[in-house]
Amino acid sequence: MQSRRIGQQTIELQNRPALCGNAAFAGKKEGEGPLGSQFDHVAHDEMYGQESFELAERRFYLDAIDTAVKKAGLAPEEIQFLLGGDLLNQIITASFSARDLGIPFIGLYGACSTMSESLCLGGMLVDGGHAQRVVCAASSHFCTAERQYRFPLEFGSQRPPTAQWTVTGAGATVLCAEPVSAPLAHLSRCCMGRVVDLGIKDANNMGAAMAPAAADTLLSLFRDTGTTPGDYDRIITGDLGQVGHDLLMQLMRENRMPLIDERYQDCGLMIYDREKQDVHAGGSGCGCSATVLNAYYLPRLQKGQLKRILFMSTGALMSPTSSQQGESIPGVAHAVVLESPTL
Amino acid sequence: MQSRRIGQQTIELQNRPALCGNAAFAGKKEGEGPLGSQFDHVAHDEMYGQESFELAERRFYLDAIDTAVKKAGLAPEEIQFLLGGDLLNQIITASFSARDLGIPFIGLYGACSTMSESLCLGGMLVDGGHAQRVVCAASSHFCTAERQYRFPLEFGSQRPPTAQWTVTGAGATVLCAEPVSAPLAHLSRCCMGRVVDLGIKDANNMGAAMAPAAADTLLSLFRDTGTTPGDYDRIITGDLGQVGHDLLMQLMRENRMPLIDERYQDCGLMIYDREKQDVHAGGSGCGCSATVLNAYYLPRLQKGQLKRILFMSTGALMSPTSSQQGESIPGVAHAVVLESPTL
Repeated sequence: MQSRRIGQQTIELQNRPALCGNAAFAGKKEGEGPLGSQFDHVAHDEMYGQESFELAERRFYLDAIDTAVKKAGLAPEEIQFLLGGDLLNQIITASFSARDLGIPFIGLYGACSTMSESLCLGGMLVDGGHAQRVVCAASSHFCTAERQYRFPLEFGSQRPPTAQWTVTGAGATVLCAEPVSAPLAHLSRCCMGRVVDLGIKDANNMGAAMAPAAADTLLSLFRDTGTTPGDYDRIITGDLGQVGHDLLMQLMRENRMPLIDERYQDCGLMIYDREKQDVHAGGSGCGCSATVLNAYYLPRLQKGQLKRILFMSTGALMSPTSSQQGESIPGVAHAVVLESPTL
Repeated sequence: MQSRRIGQQTIELQNRPALCGNAAFAGKKEGEGPLGSQFDHVAHDEMYGQESFELAERRFYLDAIDTAVKKAGLAPEEIQFLLGGDLLNQIITASFSARDLGIPFIGLYGACSTMSESLCLGGMLVDGGHAQRVVCAASSHFCTAERQYRFPLEFGSQRPPTAQWTVTGAGATVLCAEPVSAPLAHLSRCCMGRVVDLGIKDANNMGAAMAPAAADTLLSLFRDTGTTPGDYDRIITGDLGQVGHDLLMQLMRENRMPLIDERYQDCGLMIYDREKQDVHAGGSGCGCSATVLNAYYLPRLQKGQLKRILFMSTGALMSPTSSQQGESIPGVAHAVVLESPTL
């Protein structure tokens, strides 16, 4: 059988699955940021009409999936798999949402790399003919993440300048073999990342923990495909924030694949106005790259304003248990190449 | 493009990926059970030479993968993806193992359904030509699971009769497009499960929480493929234990697809001697079905003692957070059909 693998880690999706439905639901703070007008919906507050932060996050997740499926011209029962995850232990946002939706569920855990992990996997399943239509989704919520990973909000802990602000919101993308609506983009390649750990132990410096994994995946994809940063209109990382962004620029320079400032963007630096919004090093969380991809990049690919982008969510595989036991924080990054239908 | 989907949830793997390397590493108590002599290795104690329970679980995981890859006649760098997970928050066993191995990592969370979730996904990726060789792995550890999900061991909490005993151990299986060693079995079909929740809230009664999901997946697979329980030499559930086993028998009778006692087996009822080993309703955990599949079933398929089996790990998507918030426990089950190379 013909291999679709090119090089070590990169896979060519010969049937170029279509991204044919997208949605981004965001919280109040995200709505007040520079991308506020581009989300499908902005919640009035962090409770989003629910009785707990966890239920609010689930509502964001369900609403994003529902809207993405509708925008693809489909009904939930026409979707074959939900590939998704979130930051909460036992991925309760995704798994309880899957219960409510009734769509067969492939549960993923990739920390903040979940959006591109789900696109890679969903893309391969559609490309191989194992699924006709899947929905990929990821979310995070500032209040559920803080109390799970760091301190209860009531504690009022101080945050160092390297800390990032977990995005409240969810993004969902429908992938189709044969779209019934005009496609937003096509998925042409994906690159599954290795877990890389250069020894960062500070849970308030996720950007530094993730940057080496981001560099590893980028360099693998360029090596496998014979491309360079200049072949992409945008190279997008998920949530490295200012510290990780600068570190990735440095690592890529050192590896003679320099990223150009105006073409390299980090979702964590786009979603908030860092001058006014007190988010320190930028946004983070699965919901960060999930909402920015769906609200900002996919419409621009559809219109042809961008022709080819490399989208790579980045995850810090941080665990309170392993951190308490003195372990460092490994990172992982998965990448997809998305192309405009006008290409 | 040709669809490989048959019916609602079941997928035909036309290239029948080969299972070509297997390993099961188990703890002391599991070694003292009826399958003790069939594991690749049994640890002397629950620490397995490490300094924490979590590090011990990781050692089981790494050793199982290492051995499975060797038995497949391969080296780790010849494996394209590690598809795996475990029960710990942020799947730290799998993700730190992926760091140590350097194999590109697809992190999964399916609670105790992880072994079959990884085989389904790995099977589709190999079948579609997106990967040539992958390794699927899952683990659990009694001591890491108890302190995360229930009580610290030192607390000495009493266990009700419905409670199950989390298996200490790890299982790993290599899937290949073109095996270099004699295959153990072939993967011909997979069925991705829905998340089903009939309202069980008792964290000490996982079997009852999972049985409805097990029935849902079994009935879907039979409906999609036009097969009945009689078409399989064995129908195997992951870790329903006695309570869930009996409930699944009842649900299948009610749906006119009765399971026959001598052909329906639950890994949770096989791994311990319940008369002598004080495990109440049976074994549980990702490691339960992962070790029993690799130690017991795959060798019997290879020898032709079994021709065709339906293997279905079962997961309870239990979360301390959602339980404290009054939620019930959703279940999920994914199934694979495995066939003897002699068939």
